Amino acid sequence: MASIKCFSASCWTILVARRISPSTFTPSLLGSVPNSQVITKALLHQDVTAPSCSVDQKKNFLLKTPKGTHDVDPKQMTIREKVFSIILKSFKRHGAEGIDTPVFELKETLTGKYGEDSKLIYDLKDQGGEQLSLRYDLTVPFARYLAMNKISHIKRYQISKVYRRDNPGRGRYREFYQCVNDRRLLYGILATCGVPDDKFRTVSTVIDKMDKISWDKVRREMIEEKDLSPEIVDRLGEYIRLNGGLAVLEHLCNDSLVSQNTMAMEALSDLKLLHSYLEIFGVADKVTFDLGLARGLDYYTGVIYEAVLLRGPEEPHNVPDNDTDKIAGFGSIAAGGRYDDLVGMFDSKGRKVPCVGISIGIERILSMAERKAEESFKNIRTTETQVLVASAQPHYLEERMRLITALWSSGIKAEMLHKKNPKLLSQLQYCEKTGIPLVAIIGEQELRDGVVKLRDVTTREEVNIPREDLIKEIQKRTS
Amino acid sequence: MASIKCFSASCWTILVARRISPSTFTPSLLGSVPNSQVITKALLHQDVTAPSCSVDQKKNFLLKTPKGTHDVDPKQMTIREKVFSIILKSFKRHGAEGIDTPVFELKETLTGKYGEDSKLIYDLKDQGGEQLSLRYDLTVPFARYLAMNKISHIKRYQISKVYRRDNPGRGRYREFYQCVNDRRLLYGILATCGVPDDKFRTVSTVIDKMDKISWDKVRREMIEEKDLSPEIVDRLGEYIRLNGGLAVLEHLCNDSLVSQNTMAMEALSDLKLLHSYLEIFGVADKVTFDLGLARGLDYYTGVIYEAVLLRGPEEPHNVPDNDTDKIAGFGSIAAGGRYDDLVGMFDSKGRKVPCVGISIGIERILSMAERKAEESFKNIRTTETQVLVASAQPHYLEERMRLITALWSSGIKAEMLHKKNPKLLSQLQYCEKTGIPLVAIIGEQELRDGVVKLRDVTTREEVNIPREDLIKEIQKRTS
Repeated sequence: MASIKCFSASCWTILVARRISPSTFTPSLLGSVPNSQVITKALLHQDVTAPSCSVDQKKNFLLKTPKGTHDVDPKQMTIREKVFSIILKSFKRHGAEGIDTPVFELKETLTGKYGEDSKLIYDLKDQGGEQLSLRYDLTVPFARYLAMNKISHIKRYQISKVYRRDNPGRGRYREFYQCVNDRRLLYGILATCGVPDDKFRTVSTVIDKMDKISWDKVRREMIEEKDLSPEIVDRLGEYIRLNGGLAVLEHLCNDSLVSQNTMAMEALSDLKLLHSYLEIFGVADKVTFDLGLARGLDYYTGVIYEAVLLRGPEEPHNVPDNDTDKIAGFGSIAAGGRYDDLVGMFDSKGRKVPCVGISIGIERILSMAERKAEESFKNIRTTETQVLVASAQPHYLEERMRLITALWSSGIKAEMLHKKNPKLLSQLQYCEKTGIPLVAIIGEQELRDGVVKLRDVTTREEVNIPREDLIKEIQKRTS
Repeated sequence: MASIKCFSASCWTILVARRISPSTFTPSLLGSVPNSQVITKALLHQDVTAPSCSVDQKKNFLLKTPKGTHDVDPKQMTIREKVFSIILKSFKRHGAEGIDTPVFELKETLTGKYGEDSKLIYDLKDQGGEQLSLRYDLTVPFARYLAMNKISHIKRYQISKVYRRDNPGRGRYREFYQCVNDRRLLYGILATCGVPDDKFRTVSTVIDKMDKISWDKVRREMIEEKDLSPEIVDRLGEYIRLNGGLAVLEHLCNDSLVSQNTMAMEALSDLKLLHSYLEIFGVADKVTFDLGLARGLDYYTGVIYEAVLLRGPEEPHNVPDNDTDKIAGFGSIAAGGRYDDLVGMFDSKGRKVPCVGISIGIERILSMAERKAEESFKNIRTTETQVLVASAQPHYLEERMRLITALWSSGIKAEMLHKKNPKLLSQLQYCEKTGIPLVAIIGEQELRDGVVKLRDVTTREEVNIPREDLIKEIQKRTS
């Protein structure tokens, strides 16, 4: 009990989830909006239903991306690269290895792994050959990979897109905390309260909605749709609405009903151990035990958790007019849990490989990062170009090409305008627009003197630098 | 004529092409082979048809990836990351911006862009809503993106997977060269030789096979399947089998037939200009003008090119038994060209955005890099872990957790075994296996003295380091 048992295969993944609705079009705040100007506008006007497509009257087709998907423009891409690099650094700091799997799997590989969510899987058309589906998450392909390669110990990460025919969520988030529960505890409580075994999964699916809709609605759904008696549901409500720190676990350990359920007590003991480890790692204050956390997917067998972003205090409440539920502004940005039986489902001898992992839903983090960048009005550079090779005089195209070749060979990030005789003003404006800090200017005089005029775009200072010192000077100024 | 005209939208892309056959299973050398041990075996035995899947007798399903696809294991992933980072650095050195587009597009977006290759497009099943297809390349989605966002000037790169229901090629390559031709020159020559206008595209498709099958076969296909007279085909053969440097261009300029064709002469003039630029860039010796280069895709309008890896001299010829053609060992690893009309196809007013670009077929480069790594027997590290936190004594799990938390907080890449009481030998063996250079050992004595025993895995030297100096010492030794 004193070790994190069975942590033999752990994983971190970044899902770039594309939640896509098959019938309605409710784009996320950044839905299919192609560039930051448009994003700003959409944010200002709360114009979240405006489709970012244009009907081509003449050619009679819609110029758009598929519903629920969007292009990533260079500004968003720059933010994306930064966020990915932070996450990747964290994975590597903890000794994780990367893997990759195909975007689609055999349909049967995905069958029977996702419960009610299975209807959201994208199938490929039968064009002869195998029946294929786009991956719905990275966990099932990972389990297939472990079974196929008979791997029992690995710490892996994977950064890949997954595909779901779902309605996109939206939300704005700040600071975050984590929720933890254990499937065994939940099932133990369900048993304790008198929910029949064969209804555990379907009732869990309803419980999973508790972060989105009110308890009253959850209660009604359990009674009316899941056919539970009001007494059972109310007893259940007393437990699954609990959340808090170590005290909640202690409270349950002493509960006359729960303490008689072996499965629940096992879970509580493991959660208390987990809490002691969280204290060592210095993150116990970031974690709440939430008895109402259920997670929809079928394959979890033990501890389950979600990382949730809380709305910052300056953030206005944003409750949709027609709904008083607590949906707006909150959302999970990472989630996961233990799935000890999934690999065994792919193994011919049913050998178990216990696994635990977390997936980061990167799109929500990105939309927050993008909003932040917009708010601060900071100009995001989408290139890393250090210097523009320019000329004030005509007929210097080939000289510019010669100089830029030398710069590129030395690893300097350099650009030049492709025009034959661009005006000096156009060249300087290009630098200001794209954030290039330096201009290397050549002309008749400079060539004769064996120098390059190096201009600082911000201060407008110009200095003649001997050609042989140019690379060193650019490196010095841009390091 | 003295500028690279119309280079207003240029692009570089990395395609991670999945060429997949709908009916036959001919995996590439690295096809679906899951790890490097198996790869080595497959290479040694030329066992390229062995399917890397296992039939699960008991559960009655195939444990495999879809045909023509493969997982990427941590070793391959490490090589992949290195290759990507080299390419990305090159994109950024030239001032390119990144974008991303969805993995699927509206089916109609892809319709009519690929000629005969269209049959290789993957369609998604109709599950209600829009008709979707997986992207076949990155060029058509890029053109759609430009038209949708009314962008006329961009240097973009994109690193993404594309999907083709094709037979995977195979081959081993070394040093490479580039071929250049111009669609206008090719079409000019076709016209000059008497090929009717309406056969230009279909004849180009046959010419495109000249790097894979012999001239005799190409000739026969033109006569028997494309219905050209032997005289026309033989005249054509004199031209399209030409290749070489500037001299070839001069030769054609002086050719009595070609010099009368305006389109061909325009192309020749542009190619000569291109050659002068290649000289300035110092790469003219890497480029051959190849009059037989046609490229299959419909959308090219001007210059077209391929980068081809040549077999190294030490490489054995590897001609399939049943084919004396020149297929084996050669292959294109990058290709592209000018497509001035594609964006206009998406624009309501037909506004043209001239584009030129290149796609790198990264899978072949990777298979070569992987082979190279195998050959040199070099151990590829799949993690970057600097130090393993270990203990020689039992009951130090929590102390190890405390120490590793401190290391992680300082940005040190650290691991520990998750077992409660691992043996010191297991911990040292783990370091040797995974290439971790340092071990930080704690026990009763070390805790009492406020030190950590730092062990160099290679030399086996051990030094006691005061706990407050540990981070600096690890950074010093692993920088």
